Amino acid sequence: MRVLVPFAADAPKTRLEPVLSADERAAFARAMLRDVLAAIDAAGGEPTVLSTAPLDLDPSVPAPVVVDNRPLTPAVNARLPATREDDPVAVVMADLALATPAALERLFTAGGDVAIAPGRGAGTNALVVDHPGFRVDYHGSSYLDHREIAGEIGADLAVVDSFRLSTDIDEPADLVEVLVHGTDRAPAALRERGFELEADGGRVGVARVGNATSS
Amino acid sequence: MRVLVPFAADAPKTRLEPVLSADERAAFARAMLRDVLAAIDAAGGEPTVLSTAPLDLDPSVPAPVVVDNRPLTPAVNARLPATREDDPVAVVMADLALATPAALERLFTAGGDVAIAPGRGAGTNALVVDHPGFRVDYHGSSYLDHREIAGEIGADLAVVDSFRLSTDIDEPADLVEVLVHGTDRAPAALRERGFELEADGGRVGVARVGNATSS
Repeated sequence: MRVLVPFAADAPKTRLEPVLSADERAAFARAMLRDVLAAIDAAGGEPTVLSTAPLDLDPSVPAPVVVDNRPLTPAVNARLPATREDDPVAVVMADLALATPAALERLFTAGGDVAIAPGRGAGTNALVVDHPGFRVDYHGSSYLDHREIAGEIGADLAVVDSFRLSTDIDEPADLVEVLVHGTDRAPAALRERGFELEADGGRVGVARVGNATSS
Repeated sequence: MRVLVPFAADAPKTRLEPVLSADERAAFARAMLRDVLAAIDAAGGEPTVLSTAPLDLDPSVPAPVVVDNRPLTPAVNARLPATREDDPVAVVMADLALATPAALERLFTAGGDVAIAPGRGAGTNALVVDHPGFRVDYHGSSYLDHREIAGEIGADLAVVDSFRLSTDIDEPADLVEVLVHGTDRAPAALRERGFELEADGGRVGVARVGNATSS
């Protein structure tokens, strides 16, 4: 299955500003991207990075890069199936650092004209489109909007219930999930920079310790 | 399968204090409990409410109530399998307001000596124990602790990847998930009290609108 992985190359992960410098955010975003691409590849998908700007990725990364500087919604819609004969297209966000091949296989094989893995806050973290009438709208409560769009065009909708795919890494509190459930480079990138789990009463958070500094 | 549903009857959901009064929190906690019990029942489980204090539940609720005023960990451990011949026991938290029969069936049929559905922040939101040597420890990063305990006793561990079971409703921000993905009484309880989704730029939150007031 063809899998688009949108990536904001310019100023990635701005909401992590309280805990990571600009350079660190860029490196961490690339680490997450690489973990996502590796999981897609292992799940039998054929990933393409859909980047807002040219991007130098390690040659070992199993994905071509296509640059489209339009906003996310039109850039994705330009690449969705246009006819009944077109193959399905998946869209998987680049910050799903917990994605595993097993979770992605559940998405790729969910069936339906449209399959969605919702994210927290009514987001659409990953989807598969196999209907020429479906177009995305990532603004606001996109999961609800996508349900509505599917209903309007009479498309069958499958919803994939996955903690891993529901967890996009946006804010400092999300880093806990990377340390606990991350798969490869993203948790390593955090540990290299001094992040570790910190139990404070009932809940677990992250702390940045030692003398790791911003690069 | 026997399913324990621990419930803090005394002062439930204190972290919702910024948006709900004490009476409202108690009513909302009971609404979530009823949705969880109904989902367990529909998934073929036999729920028992393990309450910290006597609890009057609607007679239509399909579950007996057992009172145990000890902390969560010893109260649960007293009811886990003690011998190889004992049937497995599941433990499902009462604030998993997004739980559906399908998600719980995945947990109940996950296999392994221990099956865990992790929650955000390294919590253990639901588990099944089918090993006489396993005991829970809910303090702190319980998901990691439970993995370690399973390893120490040589128990096979299955991890259930479910957004619905990963989402416990603790904080005001979590109410979005109840409104978007809730199943029955919990979202109704919020709507009756004036809560609705509010799109504010990219993310979706909740707002309390109209003249709904605390009871």
